[in-house]
Amino acid sequence: MSYIPSLELLAQLDGGSARALARLMSRAEAGTAEARPALAEVYRRAGAAHVIGLTGVPGSGKSTLVAKLAAALRARGERVGIVAIDPSSPYSGGAILGDRIRMAELANDPGVFIRSMATRGATGGMARAALDAVDLLDVAGYRTIILETVGVGQDEVEVAHASDTTVVVSAPGLGDEIQAIKAGVLEIADIHVVSKCDRDDANRTLTDLRQMLTLGTMVGPRRAWAVPVVGVSSYTGQGVDDLLARIAAHRAAMTDSELGRERRRRVAEFRLHKTAETLLLERFAAGAKGLAPALADTLARRASDPYAAARQLIAQTIRKEYTGDLA
Amino acid sequence: MSYIPSLELLAQLDGGSARALARLMSRAEAGTAEARPALAEVYRRAGAAHVIGLTGVPGSGKSTLVAKLAAALRARGERVGIVAIDPSSPYSGGAILGDRIRMAELANDPGVFIRSMATRGATGGMARAALDAVDLLDVAGYRTIILETVGVGQDEVEVAHASDTTVVVSAPGLGDEIQAIKAGVLEIADIHVVSKCDRDDANRTLTDLRQMLTLGTMVGPRRAWAVPVVGVSSYTGQGVDDLLARIAAHRAAMTDSELGRERRRRVAEFRLHKTAETLLLERFAAGAKGLAPALADTLARRASDPYAAARQLIAQTIRKEYTGDLA
Repeated sequence: MSYIPSLELLAQLDGGSARALARLMSRAEAGTAEARPALAEVYRRAGAAHVIGLTGVPGSGKSTLVAKLAAALRARGERVGIVAIDPSSPYSGGAILGDRIRMAELANDPGVFIRSMATRGATGGMARAALDAVDLLDVAGYRTIILETVGVGQDEVEVAHASDTTVVVSAPGLGDEIQAIKAGVLEIADIHVVSKCDRDDANRTLTDLRQMLTLGTMVGPRRAWAVPVVGVSSYTGQGVDDLLARIAAHRAAMTDSELGRERRRRVAEFRLHKTAETLLLERFAAGAKGLAPALADTLARRASDPYAAARQLIAQTIRKEYTGDLA
Repeated sequence: MSYIPSLELLAQLDGGSARALARLMSRAEAGTAEARPALAEVYRRAGAAHVIGLTGVPGSGKSTLVAKLAAALRARGERVGIVAIDPSSPYSGGAILGDRIRMAELANDPGVFIRSMATRGATGGMARAALDAVDLLDVAGYRTIILETVGVGQDEVEVAHASDTTVVVSAPGLGDEIQAIKAGVLEIADIHVVSKCDRDDANRTLTDLRQMLTLGTMVGPRRAWAVPVVGVSSYTGQGVDDLLARIAAHRAAMTDSELGRERRRRVAEFRLHKTAETLLLERFAAGAKGLAPALADTLARRASDPYAAARQLIAQTIRKEYTGDLA
């Protein structure tokens, strides 16, 4: 099979090809340089979809909720795109497998497109890749896109916040709230969800969250939006429609408002930084390749130190790579 | 309490202060710029210690083995430094807690210095910070230093390999070998350990590893060193002395040999790259701060794309930050 140029895949995507969509996503995830002009074009055309960032600590019932939300949106005739950031860590092997099985019910529906991405790529460009994937779904006509991440680690939390509406899922039970607070997850919520509300101890979690919001311990870009706390049971279906209504209300509050413009500007700045880091480190690594061995020799003999040698490597590499750009 | 300059702490470290050691380690972990001249000096003076990188998948019994090795070395009168890279992920909460309790027996021994570091720092400079911590222990007179990492994720594996002798721990039981192979962990071993050799199924794991080595599926920088497979039981103590003998033999093979020089050169190059990445991204972020908002505005309106905007940001930032350096 010959290599199909990305711009050609983009034309196929415009023709409705799900296969072209999947292939462009793979190239976005791999960070393939050839795909960048196509992804740049995709970005300029995207922006019509509503992107829901959904996150929570492991065991909070995120993926089950995503499946329920997607099913409810499908029942209304909407096409739904899902980008799920999987930690490739063996720690989570069991949980992730279960999630995938729950997702499988949706996977056969042509109105749902599900993409799992690994968190640990070669270049650490996970945020850039995930947001490129969201744009691809947007241009492919998916009007609601759910970007699901595990609420562990700064990168994952930031990606969930690089959305139009951020939903943070907490489960009842000891320790979850504390873990979420530690990871800085609670502060980013536009909407809080307490999952597993069929359980007896869910009321406690709902009350805790509402109290925390009342006490104003959480500040953020929400002055013009009162953060609601919604109880949901994926088991009984309770609260799913309420959550969708809250998401729609937040979307409305973000449309043609200063709140919305500020949010989109912040997301754009995050994306700019992540893309710049990827491009900078990529070109730096390429340029440093021929220069590093000599410096490493000196370093191995302890005749230099890592900081001095690194500064030399940076200066030499920038002179080599960027002098033309600066002229 | 007033801030004690890092070079002053270094003088206190030379006087034997464990407290100065701990404080310098905190600054190395935080990436404090003020500490860099001191850490540079430390690097130039380090190199006397033998650094053992020890890694394995979660549940392989790494930390228990580290405690056993440290106790055996202490019984011989050696001072032992331990740098353990903890994933801060809640996934591993339980296991890590157990490890820390096992470590606590050693922690009261003044001849043992234990430092736990988080993997998820603000800048991703985990490798740089861990290796700076190792140098500090070296200069503080610890002649054997164990650098323990979880064998999950490229960074953690690379750090364990940035040592004089890399020990990879596998536990008997289904799936472990496969996980280790997937993570690229097995290939970096100078010595393989099969832990929990009091268990019935340990022989199977020993045989599997030996077969894999015989089949030559693993190639690497070990032409002049035959990688042994050592069975160990931290429960009965079986194999711990054998493992220490193998580590000593590897150390001897690395002394005044082309193998050793090549290894030290490779570690130095790894360290150079990691330090350069830290310094490059730090200065880039500082320089980009004032330039990003205007580009982000254009991006938020989709009048640009992330790749074009990132290239502009990089060119502008480098012109601003580095033009003087290049003149």
